Amino acid sequence: MINSRIQALRGQMEAEGIDIYLVPTADFHESEYVGEYFKARRFITGFTGSAGTAVITKTESGLWTDGRYFIQAANQLKGSEVQLYKMGVEGVPTVEEFVKEKLSEGGCLGFDGRVVNTTEGRRLEAMVKAKGGHLKVDTDLIDRIWEERPPLSKEPAWLLDEKYAGESAVHKMARVRQSMEAEGADVLILTSLDDIAWLLNIRGNDATHFPIVLSYMILTQKSAQFFVNGEVLGHEIPTVLKDEGVEIREYGEIYEAVKSISQGSHVWMDCAKVNYRIFSSLHPETVLIDKTNPTLLMKAVKNETELENIRWAHVKDGVAFTKYMYWLKTNIGKIPMTEITTADYLADRRREQENFVDLSFDTISAYEANGAMMHYSATPDSFAVLEPRGFLLVDSGAHYLEGSTDITRTMALGPITEKQREYFTLVLRSNLNLAAAKFLYGCSGLNLDILSRGPLWELGLDYRCGTGHGIGYLLNVHEAPNGFRWKHVPERNDSAILEEGMVTTDEPGVYLEGEFGIRTENELICVRDEKNEYGQFMKFETVTYAPIDLDAVDPEAMTKREKELLNGYHRMVYEKISPYLEPEEKEWLKKYTREI
Amino acid sequence: MINSRIQALRGQMEAEGIDIYLVPTADFHESEYVGEYFKARRFITGFTGSAGTAVITKTESGLWTDGRYFIQAANQLKGSEVQLYKMGVEGVPTVEEFVKEKLSEGGCLGFDGRVVNTTEGRRLEAMVKAKGGHLKVDTDLIDRIWEERPPLSKEPAWLLDEKYAGESAVHKMARVRQSMEAEGADVLILTSLDDIAWLLNIRGNDATHFPIVLSYMILTQKSAQFFVNGEVLGHEIPTVLKDEGVEIREYGEIYEAVKSISQGSHVWMDCAKVNYRIFSSLHPETVLIDKTNPTLLMKAVKNETELENIRWAHVKDGVAFTKYMYWLKTNIGKIPMTEITTADYLADRRREQENFVDLSFDTISAYEANGAMMHYSATPDSFAVLEPRGFLLVDSGAHYLEGSTDITRTMALGPITEKQREYFTLVLRSNLNLAAAKFLYGCSGLNLDILSRGPLWELGLDYRCGTGHGIGYLLNVHEAPNGFRWKHVPERNDSAILEEGMVTTDEPGVYLEGEFGIRTENELICVRDEKNEYGQFMKFETVTYAPIDLDAVDPEAMTKREKELLNGYHRMVYEKISPYLEPEEKEWLKKYTREI
Repeated sequence: MINSRIQALRGQMEAEGIDIYLVPTADFHESEYVGEYFKARRFITGFTGSAGTAVITKTESGLWTDGRYFIQAANQLKGSEVQLYKMGVEGVPTVEEFVKEKLSEGGCLGFDGRVVNTTEGRRLEAMVKAKGGHLKVDTDLIDRIWEERPPLSKEPAWLLDEKYAGESAVHKMARVRQSMEAEGADVLILTSLDDIAWLLNIRGNDATHFPIVLSYMILTQKSAQFFVNGEVLGHEIPTVLKDEGVEIREYGEIYEAVKSISQGSHVWMDCAKVNYRIFSSLHPETVLIDKTNPTLLMKAVKNETELENIRWAHVKDGVAFTKYMYWLKTNIGKIPMTEITTADYLADRRREQENFVDLSFDTISAYEANGAMMHYSATPDSFAVLEPRGFLLVDSGAHYLEGSTDITRTMALGPITEKQREYFTLVLRSNLNLAAAKFLYGCSGLNLDILSRGPLWELGLDYRCGTGHGIGYLLNVHEAPNGFRWKHVPERNDSAILEEGMVTTDEPGVYLEGEFGIRTENELICVRDEKNEYGQFMKFETVTYAPIDLDAVDPEAMTKREKELLNGYHRMVYEKISPYLEPEEKEWLKKYTREI
Repeated sequence: MINSRIQALRGQMEAEGIDIYLVPTADFHESEYVGEYFKARRFITGFTGSAGTAVITKTESGLWTDGRYFIQAANQLKGSEVQLYKMGVEGVPTVEEFVKEKLSEGGCLGFDGRVVNTTEGRRLEAMVKAKGGHLKVDTDLIDRIWEERPPLSKEPAWLLDEKYAGESAVHKMARVRQSMEAEGADVLILTSLDDIAWLLNIRGNDATHFPIVLSYMILTQKSAQFFVNGEVLGHEIPTVLKDEGVEIREYGEIYEAVKSISQGSHVWMDCAKVNYRIFSSLHPETVLIDKTNPTLLMKAVKNETELENIRWAHVKDGVAFTKYMYWLKTNIGKIPMTEITTADYLADRRREQENFVDLSFDTISAYEANGAMMHYSATPDSFAVLEPRGFLLVDSGAHYLEGSTDITRTMALGPITEKQREYFTLVLRSNLNLAAAKFLYGCSGLNLDILSRGPLWELGLDYRCGTGHGIGYLLNVHEAPNGFRWKHVPERNDSAILEEGMVTTDEPGVYLEGEFGIRTENELICVRDEKNEYGQFMKFETVTYAPIDLDAVDPEAMTKREKELLNGYHRMVYEKISPYLEPEEKEWLKKYTREI
């Protein structure tokens, strides 16, 4: 099926005189999670992971994806002509290197200019021009061959009350305009959906588990234009927006609006986020300010209201997870269970919670060897039946009106091997070590990453990803610019100084292909500690409340301090969660949060 | 005296129409350690530290220095009109900010263009021009008022045999020329004295404890010009240099030579290292390649011969230090001792060692509260008498033909306080923790610094400097581009990826003003560890061999692993050092390297 789709695409390429066609994983807004309409790369390769780029030439086709997906992609590409290119592995060419090598002199590279960002588009443009070739970016060839393509989403939008958002849209826009003034920007083109949602305190349902509204914004000191499918707004929102000074225009009108920005204007747009077609629509005489959006840092630093809400969201989420874990550990081996039925049980416990909005991403419920695939996804066609032994790794979370959660627990379903126990304890130590950090203000995740990764490195192990990522408030579960990572990766943009109010995950892991996977993930709020003659000290408040499976811990392999950290954490979990449990759950939690 | 010198300088400034005069700590080569001739900033302020800049206006005078010197500078400036500006402290203006504020519109800023680097010079030029002012950089006003100025050094030069250097000058020049070709550079202007000394395998004695020859080099693919006072070369060196294809020219001719570089040439020079007058001498139509010198990384990565030599140098240095420590600890309270006499005793033990060349820097011998001054220097006018109690901090080292050493030990001269014991153990843990790091290739000191600093941060403490610095081979004891530091400081240029063969110090400390100082410093060679599917792992080999005073250690405050690290280190010290000791010293060392 994949091969015949690729053949159909090659037919279209030939008709358009295109030699190489690029299909990235993107919507028109460079979102990480995209709606069904945008899953063109999945359509053309069969690979379902959340990140990857397909490149189709007349004779070859390739898929580029990162370390999280090497195992999954290899499996899903089997039987098709698509070759897997492992990003970041020594000797493997990048997409650009590949295209550069394969494009003949004077050749034509094609892609839909709306799904490639400006930075990448300009780089490809320069590379192709250097080979005497040209770009063709005004057509979406996938659209021509994708017969049953889902329509562009137009789910209802809704407003997030200030008691959840903590700051009015008017106040946020005033802060953004101050930043624009400081930068000398006349116009800000905002196309990243979570930035727009944050700015207008608006939410929707136009991308999977990413509660945003498909839209664009153009902001000046005096105007705010919001480009959106008017149908989704209903009656109330237009009135509110009008009161806030926001003008509503049709979604597709953005390109015309950009064309009409007067020449000489200083236009602030983040070229890594704004699509290449918008860039191409700008008058050539505008002055480009290519900087991270001012909303990025504002959004990442949660306000007091948001932080209080987040703590409560985590209590609810912890209750749901604890009920699930109790059920799982007390029923395993007694009733039939699969990766999917147990994930459904967990999702149901979350849905029971007040102000539940959605899951915050597709649950990863991965038994034994499946856990070694970092972003494994069980499907109705392919899932494991759970048995009363070994590890189940569950990475899951939910959006509530009070914020979003992301938690991973690896649970022993019965006897585990000594190796599993050793590595579980290792990952736990890594997790605790980072969470306990105290550091001077000014540190970024680059400085702290080794606190978590160091214990693994000591044993010659590593995980091929960051240790943690920022997390949005009822927005993207992966949010820049904070994170924990040892190598600076510019396109991740997650090495910002850790500011008070940022929320970041702490999720070290061990992944042994064909054996098992272990990950333990909590969220950390960055808070102030003492200020003295050496400066402002910072620390973390762990805000995820659920037991870490003591059945898999080897206390002998932990230092006294590590045991104290775990015991302190478990005491907190019991205090926060137990009031909301049934008596038998409570008793179980008491046992599973006992001192070691 | 200082005030009258400043008045004399103001007289010269007035005569030249200069409003503000800048006196940095520099020679014509941006050396860290400078010869007596170049100590103009000391002359005009009285501050003897190794780093600082003086700024004299018509009515004010200020000294800028960094955290290592805050206490010392405050003491030495007392009684003069010179104000101390603490660099890096919140709210304190930088030199440039200060000059910018104080310079009147159209005013004149003066400095000797030979002692300001090109980067700084161009920045000052732009800043002064923006105020409608101008620079005056062709006169050395300090020279006019410094009546008894020491002459420019012209100590004999000598060649470092290949059995010490491990690579011939011809081979080194070939590697540099390959780098030039790769960069598209026609000409390389090399003015940093350690780069030149490394490249030509030449040494001298023209700066205090920095065994270099005052010289410049201009390299092309076909020529190598060496600008040096011919008197210092003697008979042999010119012949050798000629054989190597190196042409000798007079030291002062560099400016004319630079003027004659043909227009259109691509000239590689590190603007942070090459002085502003050389830059001003370039034809305006040359193409500047402003990059770190190719010699920098080559010099930092020690070759196998150098590493073997360095290990031996450290055995000799460890023997000297151990003999001193034995003498100190067994005689304190029995014979009179001062900070100076004991430092002299230590220097004598080093001088006894084969192939001793010089001390590698002025010994810091600092008793009790003096130890809180990071770069304290006892003088014949001001020194402490040692008593059989409290801490003596000794930071010292030597140049041998087999390389340079830099070691710090803090020693209990008798009873110490509980606080002293607590912090001594803390610093020891920091030191051991970093030395034991295992990490993936690609890490820089930014990633690892917290291994050392973390234990202090936990207690709300910090040291106001990097954790360690690269160290030269019979060259500068502070050598770029490797180091341990948590904040990236561009001008330090010490955040390079840690390469196999780099040597870096590991020297955490606690400094409590008015109380005491503690520092424990070892040198670490970066070596390869296992390579597996996760990448190339790296680790450190500790190469400093001297006991860490067990009289000051609290084993109760150490983890099992930390005690194992210390015991392992002490076992190695005993094995390496004991064969070269007298029986009573050996017995003492046995006790002081015992297991805890």
